[in-house]
Amino acid sequence: MRYKMILQYNGTCYSGWQRQKNGVSVQEELEAALSKLYGEEIKAVASGRTDAGVHAEGQVVHFDAPETIPAAKIPLALNNFLPDDISAVSAEKAADDFNARFSAKRKTYVYRMYISPVRLPLKDLFAVRISLMPDLEKMRAAARHIAGEHDFSAFLASGSVVKNTVRTVYSLEIAEKSGDIEITVEGNGFLYNMVRIIAGTLLYAGTGKIAPEEIPDILALGDRKRAGKTMPAKGLSLLCVEYD
Amino acid sequence: MRYKMILQYNGTCYSGWQRQKNGVSVQEELEAALSKLYGEEIKAVASGRTDAGVHAEGQVVHFDAPETIPAAKIPLALNNFLPDDISAVSAEKAADDFNARFSAKRKTYVYRMYISPVRLPLKDLFAVRISLMPDLEKMRAAARHIAGEHDFSAFLASGSVVKNTVRTVYSLEIAEKSGDIEITVEGNGFLYNMVRIIAGTLLYAGTGKIAPEEIPDILALGDRKRAGKTMPAKGLSLLCVEYD
Repeated sequence: MRYKMILQYNGTCYSGWQRQKNGVSVQEELEAALSKLYGEEIKAVASGRTDAGVHAEGQVVHFDAPETIPAAKIPLALNNFLPDDISAVSAEKAADDFNARFSAKRKTYVYRMYISPVRLPLKDLFAVRISLMPDLEKMRAAARHIAGEHDFSAFLASGSVVKNTVRTVYSLEIAEKSGDIEITVEGNGFLYNMVRIIAGTLLYAGTGKIAPEEIPDILALGDRKRAGKTMPAKGLSLLCVEYD
Repeated sequence: MRYKMILQYNGTCYSGWQRQKNGVSVQEELEAALSKLYGEEIKAVASGRTDAGVHAEGQVVHFDAPETIPAAKIPLALNNFLPDDISAVSAEKAADDFNARFSAKRKTYVYRMYISPVRLPLKDLFAVRISLMPDLEKMRAAARHIAGEHDFSAFLASGSVVKNTVRTVYSLEIAEKSGDIEITVEGNGFLYNMVRIIAGTLLYAGTGKIAPEEIPDILALGDRKRAGKTMPAKGLSLLCVEYD
């Protein structure tokens, strides 16, 4: 039976979702836990990789396993075998052709910043510190230029090679509450580092390093150097993934 | 010169504020950083101990140091020598007789819980998971009985010996937002484990294990066994300390 499962993790201590030689990945922790739970080797496929240090509140995975445990009881049973910083939130049966990666239609990420002249340890694990409050209206003006269907080459990590760099950003919202800034971006897919570069570009707009009106040019020219810097991984979290 | 400084820390990895033989304390990390910054041995006194695993958003300390660094610049300079999970938030000159411990007039703690059938790693460092939403109105009814001046013997860790167990709780508020519960308690001082036992007792009231109307009896009898359980350290944070 194929299962669809929602996973939350604190990515601080992981080398990202995907298995790799150096560092512990979320995938290997999850597959080890699933294999212990079912007493046989189980492989898991996620909606997409998250990079080293990136968090997830709603990562979606699929896996095939025997029908020995009712779907609703899988999370609690599985969490006994998972480390404290990874948790299965919910699980359900899925169609045989459901694929967490290829069936994904929309993804939503959140990028978190907090404003403080000094490091605040209770915020610093899941948000990036900014010394001074940026101009949120300028950030929002820049966001309006980024939303929509564009060739996002300028927002792709330099050195990356992908065939198609056109993506659609359905929405890009900036919310502020007591000195915490949340940038929420929803799209049909994202290029490597694209959300972290969007966050960096919005911050450049909010601190006057670029004008919001430059965004259309930056997009049109596809020049990575003119967009903002790639913001640190720890501010990023995969909020949810939607399927048809 | 005597300085008053506000400190924030993630207590997860510490054996508490106070120096001890086993485990690393916040005090020894702070004193080591201060000593490096000033090039001489500096001792620090806090408003009170926080226990192993307890956090602080507004711990207050005092220390004596040469006037080589302007007070406002101490936090940033000091944070270079502090680990990521401890941060100096602000510093100012204080009177020679200012004592972070003995001059303290009021303290405010917050105890955080989150409601979820499964562990949520992004919340789980600074809050305690509760499976089902408790009855907040019953918790508030219980809180009204706890507020005020009482002999809090029933809310003192068993085995502790203190001369005076009378304390005043100025306010005890319960706020809920999207499944997160914050219990904020302000008082003139707290007995050992008192806030964690108050949180446990409110939870007992909210889950029907005790009736709010039993609280006056529990206080009057001073019987630790009738109050709620001591809630885990990780949900507790010292929010602020007030002085005249």
